[in-house]
Amino acid sequence: MDFQPFASPLLENAVNEFAKLPGIGRKTALRLVLHLLRQEESVSEAFGNAIIRLRREVHYCKVCHNISDSEICPLCSDPSRDDTTICVVENIKEVMVIENTRQYRGLYHVLGGIISPMDGIGPSDIEIESLVGRVAGGGIKEVILALSPTMEGDTTNFYIFRKLAPYGVKVSILARGVSIGDELEYTDEVTLGRSILNRLPFDETFRS
Amino acid sequence: MDFQPFASPLLENAVNEFAKLPGIGRKTALRLVLHLLRQEESVSEAFGNAIIRLRREVHYCKVCHNISDSEICPLCSDPSRDDTTICVVENIKEVMVIENTRQYRGLYHVLGGIISPMDGIGPSDIEIESLVGRVAGGGIKEVILALSPTMEGDTTNFYIFRKLAPYGVKVSILARGVSIGDELEYTDEVTLGRSILNRLPFDETFRS
Repeated sequence: MDFQPFASPLLENAVNEFAKLPGIGRKTALRLVLHLLRQEESVSEAFGNAIIRLRREVHYCKVCHNISDSEICPLCSDPSRDDTTICVVENIKEVMVIENTRQYRGLYHVLGGIISPMDGIGPSDIEIESLVGRVAGGGIKEVILALSPTMEGDTTNFYIFRKLAPYGVKVSILARGVSIGDELEYTDEVTLGRSILNRLPFDETFRS
Repeated sequence: MDFQPFASPLLENAVNEFAKLPGIGRKTALRLVLHLLRQEESVSEAFGNAIIRLRREVHYCKVCHNISDSEICPLCSDPSRDDTTICVVENIKEVMVIENTRQYRGLYHVLGGIISPMDGIGPSDIEIESLVGRVAGGGIKEVILALSPTMEGDTTNFYIFRKLAPYGVKVSILARGVSIGDELEYTDEVTLGRSILNRLPFDETFRS
């Protein structure tokens, strides 16, 4: 939809800003803006301020680089968590996903990306040095690599594995196998092949 | 996706605000917020301010109730437009759609809704009185009713038609018929029936 010059510049500006977001086109942007216009002024004030404050006031944890409102995030400063295990993830979104499984009680390390020569991202662009620093500092027994099972993820896993080798720490990766609820018939061969190679004793599958 | 209490309240607040928008769920909201977090601070400042300013500074034209940055909108104050014709629409979005056709050079009147007893919207809740006032003021030759062809639209059309009857102004509605590009085979019977009843002389279809 084109916008004629008559349209309010304020409206046009708001539509343009919405349309910059990923997955939001101009039609959706206009729909959202018209929705906000119909609401009380307090609604758009709250929305606008939440966005401005988010970016202005947000911190990243100095230890694990997770998002935080303070210098050290609540996860790193929680004494009830297992501080001998670090789970390495690509982004803060994966921290939330793993926390939601309620299966992990250790700490995290957010890389802020993965090694991807195609995108010009090398080891020094992500938080690998600080991970090595944490392990070198002692007290860590296991590092769990929880990156996506892609070529970039595997490259990053291998790089970290080599970097951590001198410290004698246990390095593990997420199990790869058939997804729960999947039909075996439609599972890809590589995944199925790995799940046969890494088959588990049946009684172990009852461990929580 | 649940949010554990550890997540940054700033993040949670921004996600909640996004998720209030129509058609945006919590997963999409989180994706948009994480996108904004990755941008420069200036990006989220511009976005937030555009939204706050929009609602705070926007005006509605005193004459036609279209959105405007001034008291009288650029359409109403444009001397090149035909000020003897008023096109009645439900919302400002329809003004944009009709302007984009470039087939109309008259003025508008934005009702801000249509009569809908189911939603508790009566004639006094929308800008019908001010439309009657404009017609009563004289100088108007034709009022074009451009509401959606729904039951509520037809009810509103009929109500306005009756209200304008004393002023001897020509009242017309948008032609209803088969859409250009539609397959006749799949056109609904009511539309097809109307388009037969209101068939046009073939040479008239070349006008304008």
